[in-house]
Amino acid sequence: MTAEFDLIARHFTRPVRRAALGVGDDCALLRPAPGQELAVSSDMLVEGRHFLSTVPPERLGHKALAVNLSDLAACGAEPLAYTLALALPRPDDAFLAGLAQGLFTLAEAHGIELVGGDTTAGPLNLCLTVIGQVPPGQALLRSGARPGDDLWVSGQLGDARLALEVWRGRVTLPGAAFEQVRRAMELPQPRVALGLALRGLATSAIDLSDGLLGDLGHVLQRSGVGAAVEVDALPCSAVLAAQPLALRRTCLLAGGDDYELLFTADPAQRDAVRAAGAGAGVAVTRCGRIEAEPGLRLRDADGHAVAGPFRGFDHFEP
Amino acid sequence: MTAEFDLIARHFTRPVRRAALGVGDDCALLRPAPGQELAVSSDMLVEGRHFLSTVPPERLGHKALAVNLSDLAACGAEPLAYTLALALPRPDDAFLAGLAQGLFTLAEAHGIELVGGDTTAGPLNLCLTVIGQVPPGQALLRSGARPGDDLWVSGQLGDARLALEVWRGRVTLPGAAFEQVRRAMELPQPRVALGLALRGLATSAIDLSDGLLGDLGHVLQRSGVGAAVEVDALPCSAVLAAQPLALRRTCLLAGGDDYELLFTADPAQRDAVRAAGAGAGVAVTRCGRIEAEPGLRLRDADGHAVAGPFRGFDHFEP
Repeated sequence: MTAEFDLIARHFTRPVRRAALGVGDDCALLRPAPGQELAVSSDMLVEGRHFLSTVPPERLGHKALAVNLSDLAACGAEPLAYTLALALPRPDDAFLAGLAQGLFTLAEAHGIELVGGDTTAGPLNLCLTVIGQVPPGQALLRSGARPGDDLWVSGQLGDARLALEVWRGRVTLPGAAFEQVRRAMELPQPRVALGLALRGLATSAIDLSDGLLGDLGHVLQRSGVGAAVEVDALPCSAVLAAQPLALRRTCLLAGGDDYELLFTADPAQRDAVRAAGAGAGVAVTRCGRIEAEPGLRLRDADGHAVAGPFRGFDHFEP
Repeated sequence: MTAEFDLIARHFTRPVRRAALGVGDDCALLRPAPGQELAVSSDMLVEGRHFLSTVPPERLGHKALAVNLSDLAACGAEPLAYTLALALPRPDDAFLAGLAQGLFTLAEAHGIELVGGDTTAGPLNLCLTVIGQVPPGQALLRSGARPGDDLWVSGQLGDARLALEVWRGRVTLPGAAFEQVRRAMELPQPRVALGLALRGLATSAIDLSDGLLGDLGHVLQRSGVGAAVEVDALPCSAVLAAQPLALRRTCLLAGGDDYELLFTADPAQRDAVRAAGAGAGVAVTRCGRIEAEPGLRLRDADGHAVAGPFRGFDHFEP
């Protein structure tokens, strides 16, 4: 680490409260609660692919941690700590101050600490690893969906993809509407409280990062089941609802960067699922059914089949 | 992840044995032994800075994991698992096959598993996070060195820096000698067994990644002590010993990428430290003393002060 990079240490060193030993030694030391399993996830964010150069650094810091916390949420794990590895073309005080503020604000909201990491010169790249804990056998997995289960989704889908279409110049929105969908893209809220509330309730769960169709496909494959999705039941904002049907459906079904939870539960648990959502402060919407027949069937409000294909979300690929 | 990137999954998916749940869900699940603390470390490797484009991919895979395991070794932690996040300009079957082979071979040698990660398109970047376990209170820290302690180092120092000088065109070596120092740079051996053997024996430890002077400085600062280093006692290869004095000392004192352990221990423990080295299959050499007076004093075999400055190792900075 060059002397110049000392400023990174300045921005990213905070007093450690919960970890046994924080940044500054060869490793961080953590004390998980006795008898818990660890949940671990890493995500790497690359400029131009996972975020645009136009993103304010506070929002980039928020999002980098949010997408990792979203993985813990999808497992029903309680966040414990995270590490940050950062490659940066050059030391940039204002950028680092903003990045640190975005990271620390979200971390404090979830009661977790930065316990270590690495900084280096290089093309802009953020790699975070989050560590959480979950009682043995209670983690929400992709593999537990059963025929007859309801399919549920949290929050609203598609706004982040709509924002991307605006950046791409394919859609024009009024200022306030653009600000709303831009916030959805840049400031996703990881559904950690919902994930915890769904332990013992949901039969499977996944977080939506690459679009509903693709992510649901992972659940179906791992669970060995199929599904029918009620396309018109998928929750969306008023801004997205006002868009043409084809664009709306693409954003809902093949959008990305939603970071909502898609999960399944026994129909007998509908009230309990709604209560879990209410307790976590996020809407939960029933949007389909798990079926024994493999494959994914899309139906509109009238029960008619909805034809694809929907172009998948692949971050910022042209 | 594009369809093209499926080949990454092919190279990096192996059966999971020890983890509760390996790759393929939102998080990996791990079950550390009851009552252990976790040791966590992340390192990011960027092309042109931490490795040269000339490195064979097998060796890059080895080194990426080795530098992370070296952090666990410096804490006396037993490796459990690791995650890999990888940014790659384009899918490259031969590169990925080699990288995976290097990673898995070293991982299997240490009985650990790849439990998760991320792959994306982007400038070549490898970010690994390793997780280990250590009994509470037994981790080797940088902060425990006490006046009167011996200063020890494992293995031999400076060959990796000598290799860098060859790549830079500042030094010429015969083929066999170059191969030897190149192996030191590209295939460092993390001293995990030594780290475990030093629990309860060493008063402090750090792994040498940025050169002895800089890394020893971290120990002195965290421990609130000073040190006298016997420069001519530092262990080096015959190849390095044959180099001119100034170059030799630069490689030994300000070389980088050594990945040996620098540690301190009570002089009453000399036999025990030598036994720990013998048991771990690595030489350990006494090379100085911790002193109450702050600062770092370098002395030659005759007890004369050795003058600096030594140009620090900053990876591949010009």
